[in-house]
Amino acid sequence: MKIIVDGMGGDNAPVETVKGTVDAVNEYDIDAIIVGKEQLIKEELNKYNYSTEKIQILNAENVISNDDDPALAIRRNKNSSLVVGLNALKDGLGDGFISAGSTGALLAGGLFIIKRIQGIDRAALTSVYPTSNGISLLVDAGANADCKPEYLRQFALMGTIYIENVLGKKNPKVGLVNIGTEEGKGNQLVKEAYELIKNENLNFVGNVEGRSLPLGEVDVIVCDGFVGNVVLKLTEGMAITIFSILKEAFMSNTKTKIGASLLKPELSEIKKLMDYREYGGAPLLGTELPIVKAHGSSDAYAIKNGIKQLISFIEKDIIKIIKNSLKQNITKMEE
Amino acid sequence: MKIIVDGMGGDNAPVETVKGTVDAVNEYDIDAIIVGKEQLIKEELNKYNYSTEKIQILNAENVISNDDDPALAIRRNKNSSLVVGLNALKDGLGDGFISAGSTGALLAGGLFIIKRIQGIDRAALTSVYPTSNGISLLVDAGANADCKPEYLRQFALMGTIYIENVLGKKNPKVGLVNIGTEEGKGNQLVKEAYELIKNENLNFVGNVEGRSLPLGEVDVIVCDGFVGNVVLKLTEGMAITIFSILKEAFMSNTKTKIGASLLKPELSEIKKLMDYREYGGAPLLGTELPIVKAHGSSDAYAIKNGIKQLISFIEKDIIKIIKNSLKQNITKMEE
Repeated sequence: MKIIVDGMGGDNAPVETVKGTVDAVNEYDIDAIIVGKEQLIKEELNKYNYSTEKIQILNAENVISNDDDPALAIRRNKNSSLVVGLNALKDGLGDGFISAGSTGALLAGGLFIIKRIQGIDRAALTSVYPTSNGISLLVDAGANADCKPEYLRQFALMGTIYIENVLGKKNPKVGLVNIGTEEGKGNQLVKEAYELIKNENLNFVGNVEGRSLPLGEVDVIVCDGFVGNVVLKLTEGMAITIFSILKEAFMSNTKTKIGASLLKPELSEIKKLMDYREYGGAPLLGTELPIVKAHGSSDAYAIKNGIKQLISFIEKDIIKIIKNSLKQNITKMEE
Repeated sequence: MKIIVDGMGGDNAPVETVKGTVDAVNEYDIDAIIVGKEQLIKEELNKYNYSTEKIQILNAENVISNDDDPALAIRRNKNSSLVVGLNALKDGLGDGFISAGSTGALLAGGLFIIKRIQGIDRAALTSVYPTSNGISLLVDAGANADCKPEYLRQFALMGTIYIENVLGKKNPKVGLVNIGTEEGKGNQLVKEAYELIKNENLNFVGNVEGRSLPLGEVDVIVCDGFVGNVVLKLTEGMAITIFSILKEAFMSNTKTKIGASLLKPELSEIKKLMDYREYGGAPLLGTELPIVKAHGSSDAYAIKNGIKQLISFIEKDIIKIIKNSLKQNITKMEE
């Protein structure tokens, strides 16, 4: 298996992207192509020990930044690491692509260069969502700010396939984010989506309120990309805020400092639960080839975990399973 | 000043609603009317010491439950404490109304019985939002699941007036909940709302992401009622979840128990910050007369604080200020 890595994407590129790739190549049985400025990548690679035949460099002179207009950047910046990398994926040079660069540009590139699976209207950004009960999967985490009910049905389907096959949750519970648990609640979008998802062959448990998300009451959290992005960032923000308030309180005097020191291992364990770096990346679901978005502020550890997720995505042949499930649906509808 | 209290609304009515009212009457210089089953209310009142001339009972035989269809219940259940209470408000028997009962029914009653302020398209549920930096105000917290851009403009305006006058924040910063901070981000609704709010005479600081909400970066958090409800409940859920994980970790062995005991006062202080009971209620903004929604699970302390908020709502003459600001806008547009 060969992974294509955007060496220049993200806040800590190329230092951390290269290190993360080397770590992944050393730890997992894979080869890698790192896309980016050859000289820079080479300098970074020279710092590490690895089987040199396992990592190639694919030169790309430019970088797409978060400030660039995504669709425009994809069309015009042909020499960017992101576009060169996605074209390499399309041409079969590797089996999957990972980038910590601009989310918008990666999405646009996924659609324009790699294309959508036939029968899927929108590709979704899928994020692992840490809960007190393990992990859930959030679809859509921000790719599609405006959705139609049918998109949400497809998110439910793809999310179920992903969590079942990659994360090994059998018969995952699907919940629709809503403002009440009763059927018939919500805005027009979720009311209609409810009816569509209900009729799917999924373990749909109905509506789920914001309150229940951190408790892990459902495995697949379905919502439009606007709500999903707010949910994801608010969850992160709440964790950061509460821990920073705690930290301040714990450092306030000698007594609290002693108390905090006695709790240190437990506190570290809890913080780790909420650390995005543990989960590595957000797979794009709905494109013809496997793509994973790594967090913009990824360090080497996060990149390595993102690559690990990409490896599962490829190995479990998620895209084929999605296609088959769509075929079954079409057959069912024709019967 | 005379407050009308829905004695039967909420999970802990009438025990806690009556106790909370008595506490408020004893603590603040007000009179009260408690609406509900006369015999039940009387029995509760008999438990407490207060100036009996300061609290009247208004009999209402029925209660609207959370399972009832709100609009239907308001039209048909004329003998419910909520409808009797709102009619008493309309008839001038009191200066404001508070209920811990069905949110949907209170909203429907606010619109059908009390009516909207002319020039306001939708009444919003407004919730105090606790942050690490004090409190913000969330508008809309769940009244309007489907919104037009114009509604969000009005929410921004009413929220500013409320927080400035009732909570004393001068020149409050208004933020629009979005999935990125840059102008032009988001779904169709917020893109259009951005343009409308930008042109208002408000301290509009632009888009605000989910991550920034718990940090209190803005004072007035503007969003549609679907997003607002998810934000509010997720915030509550995260706080509950993190504290329950912490509690479990702190109780895991003797060492952690000693550590936790040293931190107890600080932890209680932090928990208090996030306790809805401290803030008491969510004012409805946009109706012709002051209405406050108390949390469904309110105890006496929360009811008392809700009444305190209602008192400010009335004293500061928020509704008149909203009306005046609308007149100014119309004058401005005509010029």
